Amino acid sequence: MSSPTPSQDALARLATVIESRKPGRGGDPNASYVARLLNQGPDAFLKKIGEEATEVVMAAKDADHGGDKAKVVNEVADLWFHSMIALAHYGFAPADVIAELERREGTSGIEEKALRKALSRAAAESEKS
Amino acid sequence: MSSPTPSQDALARLATVIESRKPGRGGDPNASYVARLLNQGPDAFLKKIGEEATEVVMAAKDADHGGDKAKVVNEVADLWFHSMIALAHYGFAPADVIAELERREGTSGIEEKALRKALSRAAAESEKS
Amino acid sequence: MSSPTPSQDALARLATVIESRKPGRGGDPNASYVARLLNQGPDAFLKKIGEEATEVVMAAKDADHGGDKAKVVNEVADLWFHSMIALAHYGFAPADVIAELERREGTSGIEEKALRKALSRAAAESEKS
Amino acid sequence: MSSPTPSQDALARLATVIESRKPGRGGDPNASYVARLLNQGPDAFLKKIGEEATEVVMAAKDADHGGDKAKVVNEVADLWFHSMIALAHYGFAPADVIAELERREGTSGIEEKALRKALSRAAAESEKS
Repeated sequence: MSSPTPSQDALARLATVIESRKPGRGGDPNASYVARLLNQGPDAFLKKIGEEATEVVMAAKDADHGGDKAKVVNEVADLWFHSMIALAHYGFAPADVIAELERREGTSGIEEKALRKALSRAAAESEKS
Repeated sequence: MSSPTPSQDALARLATVIESRKPGRGGDPNASYVARLLNQGPDAFLKKIGEEATEVVMAAKDADHGGDKAKVVNEVADLWFHSMIALAHYGFAPADVIAELERREGTSGIEEKALRKALSRAAAESEKS
Repeated sequence: MSSPTPSQDALARLATVIESRKPGRGGDPNASYVARLLNQGPDAFLKKIGEEATEVVMAAKDADHGGDKAKVVNEVADLWFHSMIALAHYGFAPADVIAELERREGTSGIEEKALRKALSRAAAESEKS
Repeated sequence: MSSPTPSQDALARLATVIESRKPGRGGDPNASYVARLLNQGPDAFLKKIGEEATEVVMAAKDADHGGDKAKVVNEVADLWFHSMIALAHYGFAPADVIAELERREGTSGIEEKALRKALSRAAAESEKS
């Protein structure tokens, strides 16, 4: 990335573009892919989230078997991009997601809670099997 | 978010934590959820990506029908978090995803190419139906 | 399969078992996995559908790269099983799905309509790229 | 369904049609949707499985909120149809999936094993939270 702009600004900038594509803000479904998805309504972009998640999984499995790892980045970019369209529709921005991740990090919650749960499951399962 | 730290740093900081949980860097599967997933291998975190994408869709559909919109943010945070674990496994960081999004934005590709494709499809389909 | 029973009966029989696990029909969440999922409500089994679809994809990608193809069958069985729990919840049975597939086959719809759409897309896209 | 044919025959018949669409068996990608997907290779139909699973979830959530329940059947039909294309590609048929479900039923495995696991998890989690 040759740009000196911090990447967070890139996310915020992309969120601003998405915001400007909302039907109520003049987004034109015939001139913008994002406007088109927002205009079609939730099912259009939610379906894309399911589809892009599947593509991340396929790219990752290919990478596991010797394929190009860079494809994983491309597919995650698609997944995050469509997540951002959903976020915009429901009145949010990537900053809200990042704040939520930060909040969990701050309270140490993200790791500890998930770990406690995973370990309990594993313990319980190995006991029983 | 009371922190004065830009949110991009939050993503980078979280990526650094994830990086430190890699089995080869001393990540302890019994002390860290991330280390545990990385240690179990790709299927463990890829399955979570499919699961969390489904949870984003469910939270969004609930929001469409009057449910709490904030749940969408929580589920997208889970989806991005598990995407970041996958990225780390394949040698990447969120900065790579953001650079890819920025690259597309720079070349105007993200909108125009996807739109051209969507419009062609719609035109072709309405012609035939 | 040593049973002389046609496999359709197997699906119908499994549907009957699932039906009997409904909370209103005496299904006991502490004695039956199906009763438990039905009792937890839609999000529980819908999440499993997303998860099992991801597992089908992962097993298939492994098979593509030399892995055990039989795992694909196991994962599809899990996917169909959880689909049947959803069907039961909404008042349907596998026979309804099969009737729908048959209806499409009868009207030749399943292939022709989908093909027309796919070809139009491909034509439109190759034109533009 | 006016047909006197048992539904299992419908699945077997559809599987035979899919089988005949294989590239090596004369399936013509320009004349058949199934031939087209099989010709494009695994990623094409695996992506559809992820997409159709998401559509099942969306239709179900709509049904939960008062929408048309019949749409769930249509989406499950799409999901099963694309699963059958995957099965054919890997050398299997719906009868193999049904046999696997029957095998589990026969060994009582389908319910008991899954239940044991789910109860253990729940117990472990409630203990810790």
